[in-house]
Amino acid sequence: MPNLKSKIMPPAHPFDTSYLRDSEDGDKLKEECGVFGVVGVADASNFVALGLHALQHRGQEAGGIVSHDPEAGFQSARRFGYVRDNFTSQKVMETLPGELAIGHVRYSTTGSKGQTAIRDVQPFFGEFAMGGAAIAHNGNITNANALRRELIERGSIFQSSSDSECIIHLMARSLQRNIPERMEDALRRVEGAFSVVAMTRTKLIGVRDPLGVRPLVLGKIGDGWALSSETCALDIIGAEFVREIEPGEMVVITPKGVESHFPFRRQSSRFCIFEHVYFSRPDSILGGRSVYETREAIGRELAKESPVEADLVCPVPDSGTPAAIGYSLESGIPYAMGIIRNQYMGRTFIEPTEQIRNMGVRLKLNVNRALIKGKRVILVDDSVVRGTTSRKIKEMILDAGAKEVHFRIASPPTAWPCFYGVDTPQREKLLAATMSEEEMRDHLAVDSLKFISLDGLYRAVGEAEGRNSKCPQYCDACFSGEYPVTPADQLAQGFEMKPAAE
Amino acid sequence: MPNLKSKIMPPAHPFDTSYLRDSEDGDKLKEECGVFGVVGVADASNFVALGLHALQHRGQEAGGIVSHDPEAGFQSARRFGYVRDNFTSQKVMETLPGELAIGHVRYSTTGSKGQTAIRDVQPFFGEFAMGGAAIAHNGNITNANALRRELIERGSIFQSSSDSECIIHLMARSLQRNIPERMEDALRRVEGAFSVVAMTRTKLIGVRDPLGVRPLVLGKIGDGWALSSETCALDIIGAEFVREIEPGEMVVITPKGVESHFPFRRQSSRFCIFEHVYFSRPDSILGGRSVYETREAIGRELAKESPVEADLVCPVPDSGTPAAIGYSLESGIPYAMGIIRNQYMGRTFIEPTEQIRNMGVRLKLNVNRALIKGKRVILVDDSVVRGTTSRKIKEMILDAGAKEVHFRIASPPTAWPCFYGVDTPQREKLLAATMSEEEMRDHLAVDSLKFISLDGLYRAVGEAEGRNSKCPQYCDACFSGEYPVTPADQLAQGFEMKPAAE
Amino acid sequence: MPNLKSKIMPPAHPFDTSYLRDSEDGDKLKEECGVFGVVGVADASNFVALGLHALQHRGQEAGGIVSHDPEAGFQSARRFGYVRDNFTSQKVMETLPGELAIGHVRYSTTGSKGQTAIRDVQPFFGEFAMGGAAIAHNGNITNANALRRELIERGSIFQSSSDSECIIHLMARSLQRNIPERMEDALRRVEGAFSVVAMTRTKLIGVRDPLGVRPLVLGKIGDGWALSSETCALDIIGAEFVREIEPGEMVVITPKGVESHFPFRRQSSRFCIFEHVYFSRPDSILGGRSVYETREAIGRELAKESPVEADLVCPVPDSGTPAAIGYSLESGIPYAMGIIRNQYMGRTFIEPTEQIRNMGVRLKLNVNRALIKGKRVILVDDSVVRGTTSRKIKEMILDAGAKEVHFRIASPPTAWPCFYGVDTPQREKLLAATMSEEEMRDHLAVDSLKFISLDGLYRAVGEAEGRNSKCPQYCDACFSGEYPVTPADQLAQGFEMKPAAE
Amino acid sequence: MPNLKSKIMPPAHPFDTSYLRDSEDGDKLKEECGVFGVVGVADASNFVALGLHALQHRGQEAGGIVSHDPEAGFQSARRFGYVRDNFTSQKVMETLPGELAIGHVRYSTTGSKGQTAIRDVQPFFGEFAMGGAAIAHNGNITNANALRRELIERGSIFQSSSDSECIIHLMARSLQRNIPERMEDALRRVEGAFSVVAMTRTKLIGVRDPLGVRPLVLGKIGDGWALSSETCALDIIGAEFVREIEPGEMVVITPKGVESHFPFRRQSSRFCIFEHVYFSRPDSILGGRSVYETREAIGRELAKESPVEADLVCPVPDSGTPAAIGYSLESGIPYAMGIIRNQYMGRTFIEPTEQIRNMGVRLKLNVNRALIKGKRVILVDDSVVRGTTSRKIKEMILDAGAKEVHFRIASPPTAWPCFYGVDTPQREKLLAATMSEEEMRDHLAVDSLKFISLDGLYRAVGEAEGRNSKCPQYCDACFSGEYPVTPADQLAQGFEMKPAAE
Repeated sequence: MPNLKSKIMPPAHPFDTSYLRDSEDGDKLKEECGVFGVVGVADASNFVALGLHALQHRGQEAGGIVSHDPEAGFQSARRFGYVRDNFTSQKVMETLPGELAIGHVRYSTTGSKGQTAIRDVQPFFGEFAMGGAAIAHNGNITNANALRRELIERGSIFQSSSDSECIIHLMARSLQRNIPERMEDALRRVEGAFSVVAMTRTKLIGVRDPLGVRPLVLGKIGDGWALSSETCALDIIGAEFVREIEPGEMVVITPKGVESHFPFRRQSSRFCIFEHVYFSRPDSILGGRSVYETREAIGRELAKESPVEADLVCPVPDSGTPAAIGYSLESGIPYAMGIIRNQYMGRTFIEPTEQIRNMGVRLKLNVNRALIKGKRVILVDDSVVRGTTSRKIKEMILDAGAKEVHFRIASPPTAWPCFYGVDTPQREKLLAATMSEEEMRDHLAVDSLKFISLDGLYRAVGEAEGRNSKCPQYCDACFSGEYPVTPADQLAQGFEMKPAAE
Repeated sequence: MPNLKSKIMPPAHPFDTSYLRDSEDGDKLKEECGVFGVVGVADASNFVALGLHALQHRGQEAGGIVSHDPEAGFQSARRFGYVRDNFTSQKVMETLPGELAIGHVRYSTTGSKGQTAIRDVQPFFGEFAMGGAAIAHNGNITNANALRRELIERGSIFQSSSDSECIIHLMARSLQRNIPERMEDALRRVEGAFSVVAMTRTKLIGVRDPLGVRPLVLGKIGDGWALSSETCALDIIGAEFVREIEPGEMVVITPKGVESHFPFRRQSSRFCIFEHVYFSRPDSILGGRSVYETREAIGRELAKESPVEADLVCPVPDSGTPAAIGYSLESGIPYAMGIIRNQYMGRTFIEPTEQIRNMGVRLKLNVNRALIKGKRVILVDDSVVRGTTSRKIKEMILDAGAKEVHFRIASPPTAWPCFYGVDTPQREKLLAATMSEEEMRDHLAVDSLKFISLDGLYRAVGEAEGRNSKCPQYCDACFSGEYPVTPADQLAQGFEMKPAAE
Repeated sequence: MPNLKSKIMPPAHPFDTSYLRDSEDGDKLKEECGVFGVVGVADASNFVALGLHALQHRGQEAGGIVSHDPEAGFQSARRFGYVRDNFTSQKVMETLPGELAIGHVRYSTTGSKGQTAIRDVQPFFGEFAMGGAAIAHNGNITNANALRRELIERGSIFQSSSDSECIIHLMARSLQRNIPERMEDALRRVEGAFSVVAMTRTKLIGVRDPLGVRPLVLGKIGDGWALSSETCALDIIGAEFVREIEPGEMVVITPKGVESHFPFRRQSSRFCIFEHVYFSRPDSILGGRSVYETREAIGRELAKESPVEADLVCPVPDSGTPAAIGYSLESGIPYAMGIIRNQYMGRTFIEPTEQIRNMGVRLKLNVNRALIKGKRVILVDDSVVRGTTSRKIKEMILDAGAKEVHFRIASPPTAWPCFYGVDTPQREKLLAATMSEEEMRDHLAVDSLKFISLDGLYRAVGEAEGRNSKCPQYCDACFSGEYPVTPADQLAQGFEMKPAAE
Repeated sequence: MPNLKSKIMPPAHPFDTSYLRDSEDGDKLKEECGVFGVVGVADASNFVALGLHALQHRGQEAGGIVSHDPEAGFQSARRFGYVRDNFTSQKVMETLPGELAIGHVRYSTTGSKGQTAIRDVQPFFGEFAMGGAAIAHNGNITNANALRRELIERGSIFQSSSDSECIIHLMARSLQRNIPERMEDALRRVEGAFSVVAMTRTKLIGVRDPLGVRPLVLGKIGDGWALSSETCALDIIGAEFVREIEPGEMVVITPKGVESHFPFRRQSSRFCIFEHVYFSRPDSILGGRSVYETREAIGRELAKESPVEADLVCPVPDSGTPAAIGYSLESGIPYAMGIIRNQYMGRTFIEPTEQIRNMGVRLKLNVNRALIKGKRVILVDDSVVRGTTSRKIKEMILDAGAKEVHFRIASPPTAWPCFYGVDTPQREKLLAATMSEEEMRDHLAVDSLKFISLDGLYRAVGEAEGRNSKCPQYCDACFSGEYPVTPADQLAQGFEMKPAAE
């Protein structure tokens, strides 16, 4: 017991208070938002609260709801923290009457990260000459800085540091006569990824950017309609899944029906492939199949590509679970829960420094020592971002007496940041940006480390021929460095793209 | 879509506020407490906070810590809610200095259920002529009412409605000259189940009742020692698991070492078999084996006893998972996550009425529709208490298009209440108290329903010969109705025991 | 004891929670705001907090502070409730660093009365092309509705319901090149009463409207400067009172000195005479004399105009105190505290309905029964608004056994609403709008009721010749119905001004 | 401006958070408690809340209410802070049903000063063999330490650090068969000062110690009854003042009527004379006269004893006001408010150190500079304790340009601590314990300083012959050092009484 001393020096306090903000892994890519809207049912805001609750994995920092009722007009409530803690009391929900409501959960915006003010919490609202409108935005505007500068010079006053506020100011200045047209006008000036849910006094509006990077689906509930980032939120309110909103489509919905428009120039779509890997909930349906099944298929593909002899297949909880099951089914190696998650945390905690993050993993995960001892263990995780969690988990497994540790990763190496609505570390913090697969294996000091290939991932998500390198079927910029929309603001701040020749 | 109307009538508010108290399943038996103590390391209360956090599954309603420091004397903090929300700030932890501390998490006491006052939250503290002492108690005193009456007649003033307070008053009136002897004196008057962690100004004390109904383990941390309900809480602080405290043993611990006493008349031990089935965390070690492995073995045993042809084995999350894995491994039927739990809830929410509880399940669980459709599904759950959750889950699975639903339960029918520190419904609310297995199957309207046999359960926990009906190796009163300690207070209140002849 | 039953029916709860918002009398005119700013001293926001605390009588609903520091940039904190409850902790004040800060306390705005959102709390902030600016406004803009409509049509997005937000949007659209000039530009479009304290990154700015309706004073603190609604707030921070800002003057202050501009067309000034009667704190200095002395002089004048034989002169606490002392000194009738105020309330509580307001007076005031019994009592109050308090106090005095009750009021009958930054009831709720002095006496059922004459009031505030009816020296619209600025928004909403001929 | 620098160095934060606990003067003696009880009216706890609100000046740190209802049994709520902040919501008051309730407000106990735990907040409750009882105690037990030691040795467990808890433990051990007799039994063991309000399931009980040191009065409300520390709290609920409870009397009250007992050996009464000087509210009635009138009479007596030529008589607000009015009426020198109190504070703030206390005075009080300048000012205060406030006020007055400052004090020099329920500094902190009147005048650097004589004070409170030095009519130990009850605990801790010969 040589270095025990360090083990028994407790931190100044046993938990970091950032646990209270926990729930997303400090070593994961983080989806930034979920959006939800309902029209044509009584107490629409209650359904929105339920929907946002089901989308909580897409953003835990804050949430907001705007409703409209002919008598009460537009009402809003925006709060930090979980939906279940803020939009549960009769007292709050009574302030949001009406048959039309939209809502938003967010992790953080491009703006004031770490110091988010309540004014940064969406939906945003604007009063126009022809009436008010509220919008909720999932994605990221890649020319937001330039738009903001232009709007301020023209006399707009920004209330938030969010890139999404540009949309409402652009709408305020549009020359069009009605709000849907003003929104088209505004969104044509916007570059990047966006799935928007918006509302006027009488209409629920949904829009996806021309590439369809972020998801958005349509549901039917009674005589009304719902829009949601994912189908799992339709399930929670008992709504029927109708279809996905198409890339570049705008739907304008009233209780009477759904009008569809295509205001943008048509392009080939590039849906975010990472939604399949990690962001979406396993019980959501994407492309006609449950995300769970896709992830199981990724695990099977991984077992085919990178087999290894071992005694147990263990998931890194919870996000590695379906792929681990797939790996086990394909390989015939028994599946077991070698690592137990403390359920009184969320996925993992957000923590400010890498040092505390390392510590955090001990608090959240525990190894099933008696099970692991003397075994050859395959650990399946969804991705490796900074690599800090992986290293820590490997140490826990070895401390518990495992004979061998083999990592299998259900996505290719994450080597490039995302600028389309995902919170990624700076490029130099990404393990795969600076190391080859072997270097990573050595860095993690494991017996083997294998990532699924990009083609393998494409096959698992249903592209039998793999990736079409001429015209990729998905946005996979985080793996390939090929950005379907030029990240203008980031380039202006010095980000260097991959040379075209590479 | 015939009865859609009812589906689209939202509740008055979308969540019941009782979610805030969530985390234990309204349809589960509930362990009432976890205890933890540390002596001989700096900032002992920080370790206690971490330990209690790891034991949070044993009680989510409230927690408390008492520490002692030569300068500050005894200090305490007791709060409602989670450890992570109450014992995380530097501000709170600084009020609990010293190298000696104990703590307690509780679900509820025998006393003022649902209206718990903070004064009911342990540890309890008493100032005696020879100095102060604090105690934390896991279990239940079955002659508490009689003791309380006697003590009040002698002039004691009770501050709480907790049965555990009797212990400290008995200690106050003992004629012995030091605190450990006073505690022996007091505990010899107490009937029922108890694992006690206590402290004086210089000593950490642990005691288990003669039957050893509730767990208690000893760990080594640096130059100090720890006592814990389960080994998983030793892991979180990096302590080494030394051994279980024996039934009927009292340990008196100082930094210098551990003294062992056996103050009670020796008896055969009767450890709670339900700790294996549900209460303990899967990564804890009981009887030399991880609880996870035991549960996997229960699943295997169940597959042997009650096989059925099917396409998928799905756990009822999260407590049915290890048994489902065992069932799958034994039967060869693929394991799959057919039901997804919303991670932003705890296990399930506590809710006041059965009606809301039914609703609760929809909020917390979602079926993986695309996966389940057209399949024959085996659902593995740890136990059936009221049966409300089971019925609801079955409906969800059928709604999603499953072809057949087979329930397999990893414990025998729960037909009798527990009086030894577990919160069970009144007997008439237990489904198995009023129905046979077939009646339950009909009631739940499933294709088949099978419980593991009592002998099968004993085999799975390591008794190769099964249950010794002359002298059972475990307390299994909840299944068998055979109570190892006469529940005196309950009999006085009209509870009828199983006729001896039965 | 005939109607005792009604006396012993307690309210559903003993206090109305609106007490928590208390402090201003439901039967008083309410000043809407206080402003304060400091430049050139370290930790400027701390001084602003102290200044706002001293101005708390001008607004208790909410308060805000904006500071600027070269490193931290603009920072702000806005809260509901008292300054002492919100701007006292090190934690909050550390977020407001720098040598330049402004602040605001408010009662309510013209906007969302009773439902004030935090976004309505000043100071307001705007980012312009040449940098940010924050403004705090005391007064009321009488053409706010029209301005707002115009700005929205041009594409501005309002975040609050406050009339004051117009100023910052007008500034955003100004063609001028620096912020002080943009402010001049903006304020030239604004009608009504305003005392504004504003700041850029380097400058503290103060402006009074051309009539100088609301007060604003300049002070010197060390090497820095302060602007304040009243001198009492200079005293609290140890600043020296330099001079009043002149009507129509804009001062632009840096640590180096004070520049003075007169951007508006010159007019005769019309300072609010009610500041002397009630709004300002008695220890503030207005026109070179303490407000206390002016109020004592009003009492003396009232004693000359309306003498009566009596045993005691009692103030209606606390606002009637100085005038009662003056009346006593002039008349020789002993001064006594016949009514005792419960110090754990503020002035009086704000309460939603007249019924509760009546009850409120009993909670807040108690009669000195032993003292009053059998006496002829002169009660001196500052004003009569709705008359509800007066009637209640009269009843208390009579219940206590007074022989006679004579009311003397230190202001003329309040018959017209104020539109310049004071919260007055609708005209029909003003007792003096519908009754003559005799009718009011009968309504209140007192032995006599006399108001000071308008000329008497002018004499007391120092105009030896009384009111110049051609060109009144003060704004006395609430007494005379002569509005120095046309209340455009109110006329548009149907308010009827006094016929010119009257 | 030589030492301006120090003036413009702000504190780390502008207010000390101890302001939040404000309301009593750090330089005043502090009454420790107020008690109130009601029987025989619906919703008794609401009346108790109102009564405690009216008694808030007797204790601001915390308050508690216990009620009894046949169905709900005993219920209690105990909170830190003001009555208006804790006992106002319907939600809280509904938890306190029934026609019988008692309550308590406290400043602090002899126990854990500054670290009061909620468990120290009265009323205390005990369950006895014949039913429960709750007690609320105003006063101090001078043999509490000895009683506590004895009770612990017998096996009692104390939950609080309050001296008052002894009473309930003595009651628990009494051999008597009913609660009133047990209370008599207990109180006969208690030495010191006590006014107790207690309740059983059916009875309201009031007791005063044999000397009647602390006040207690009886009122009639509808068909029920009330007990209160002062009559002002009867006024607030519309109850009729019946009579004072006599020294040594116990009243046992049911809705049917009031039984009177005298369980103690009779003695001459010794009511606390400081209740007249400062503690009681001016609108309360003591000895048939309003406290206000008594204080005015003290001022008149002071003017007779210690006249001086001057321009103004100013009170030190607020406690000096009635004596200042009396001084003015007797002397003919005009009364004026030369010092203005910031109404958003309480009397003064409690602050931890003398240094901050000095600062505190500036925050709370402001001089009416324009009024004071060039004047000879008589300042009338109720008492001088540490002298810190007096010195500060004198400086403020001189800074404002006063020509002369004359202090007149409405009580004799406070030279001895009180041990009967008042929080006094240690003897060496009392200015008058170490200085003569001239030394104090020099210390304060004022033009003159005069205290009323002890005989003068007795005359003003109605003893025409002054003090009977053989058998003083009042307890005046704080002035005379003659303690009517031997302070046993204090002597044991080293307190030295005045030599008998002196």
